[in-house]
Amino acid sequence: MHRIKVKVAEGALDANDTIARANRDDFDRDGVAVVNLMSAPGAGKTTLLEAVVRAGLGDVRAGVLEGDVQGSLDAERLAHLHVPVTQLNTGNGFGGECHLDANMVRSALPSLPLADLDLLVIENVGNLVCPAEFRVGEDVRAMVCSVTEGEDKPLKYPLMFRACDLVVINKIDLLPHLDYDLDKLVYHLEAVHPGVEHIAVSARTGEGVEAVRDWFVRVASRAGAAV
Amino acid sequence: MHRIKVKVAEGALDANDTIARANRDDFDRDGVAVVNLMSAPGAGKTTLLEAVVRAGLGDVRAGVLEGDVQGSLDAERLAHLHVPVTQLNTGNGFGGECHLDANMVRSALPSLPLADLDLLVIENVGNLVCPAEFRVGEDVRAMVCSVTEGEDKPLKYPLMFRACDLVVINKIDLLPHLDYDLDKLVYHLEAVHPGVEHIAVSARTGEGVEAVRDWFVRVASRAGAAV
Repeated sequence: MHRIKVKVAEGALDANDTIARANRDDFDRDGVAVVNLMSAPGAGKTTLLEAVVRAGLGDVRAGVLEGDVQGSLDAERLAHLHVPVTQLNTGNGFGGECHLDANMVRSALPSLPLADLDLLVIENVGNLVCPAEFRVGEDVRAMVCSVTEGEDKPLKYPLMFRACDLVVINKIDLLPHLDYDLDKLVYHLEAVHPGVEHIAVSARTGEGVEAVRDWFVRVASRAGAAV
Repeated sequence: MHRIKVKVAEGALDANDTIARANRDDFDRDGVAVVNLMSAPGAGKTTLLEAVVRAGLGDVRAGVLEGDVQGSLDAERLAHLHVPVTQLNTGNGFGGECHLDANMVRSALPSLPLADLDLLVIENVGNLVCPAEFRVGEDVRAMVCSVTEGEDKPLKYPLMFRACDLVVINKIDLLPHLDYDLDKLVYHLEAVHPGVEHIAVSARTGEGVEAVRDWFVRVASRAGAAV
């Protein structure tokens, strides 16, 4: 038998990671902090963003890249709040993908006013599986987990909960009407991602939203410091 | 320029459809009606199935194929009700896929007691995008849409709502506590899938569950008639 020496390129990036790095370089050049915001459909990402904007981001100039399979309903909601928002549909030229990837985000960069932003929130497609597998050039990842979804979600979708730097537990105004144990959710969260930061909120009533707002402001100021 | 005659196999099936057809043949041979049950994460598929089983399926011998990325929490819940249940994890050998496909379902068939079933419910992975793109050999498709997800979901995930023969609108016990307009959801549903059957339920309180049970029984009896 012959022994064949094969040179392995250690740490070679796949195409997505290569493009994510290019996105990241562009964001860094303009001093923009980027949050990849993920959740299941209907968990309240857009309502949370609306509430955070209403709570006031101070000096932070924020923009949104809105990912959806189809339509621009969420982008229109955010545009009403005078936030620069760009719609990115995975149904147009991207095969109706169930997630954003780095290349899709890259295609939207020319329509984003990066030089005028401190913070860009990329609202991903509503999905608890695939979005966690694709870096898009973000600094941090946050997810919204609604209490109406049950306490078992970290155990059923561990990759998503492990991938995030912040878990926002939304719709806590509904707790009195649900058979839901918040301690159990946190216990499951700790099991799959020990020590992960979590904030319980009601984007609808505003409860807890200021803590999320403060988190976004901290993310933005860290990026500013790095430039 | 030469003209080259290319023979095109019209209606050629892709690999998934070919395997779905093989699954379907196996189901037909044993006279099993098959429902592909889909929803977003946490919409209440398993709770609905528990409620339907508790409501009583009469002579219908039902089994469940439980699809999850990881874990067997839902399968264990259903096994408590003495329903034959087989767990299928997309995380084991299927790359953590966000949906079931025909080949995954085929891999589980040997562990299902098909000869002893009239009805098989395939509980898909919680996801409003990709499951709608993969036939698995089912007779009909049903989806669960929770009122906590907002009224806009048919517009944002039209393929899923179009693919279904039944839309179960779940968690209506929470309506008094939500800013949710059920008529608006039905209006959006009609816009993307005119005339689709829908049933409003609370799997938690049992309201409306008998209508869903009757739908399952009708599906099972149609398959029996075809054998």
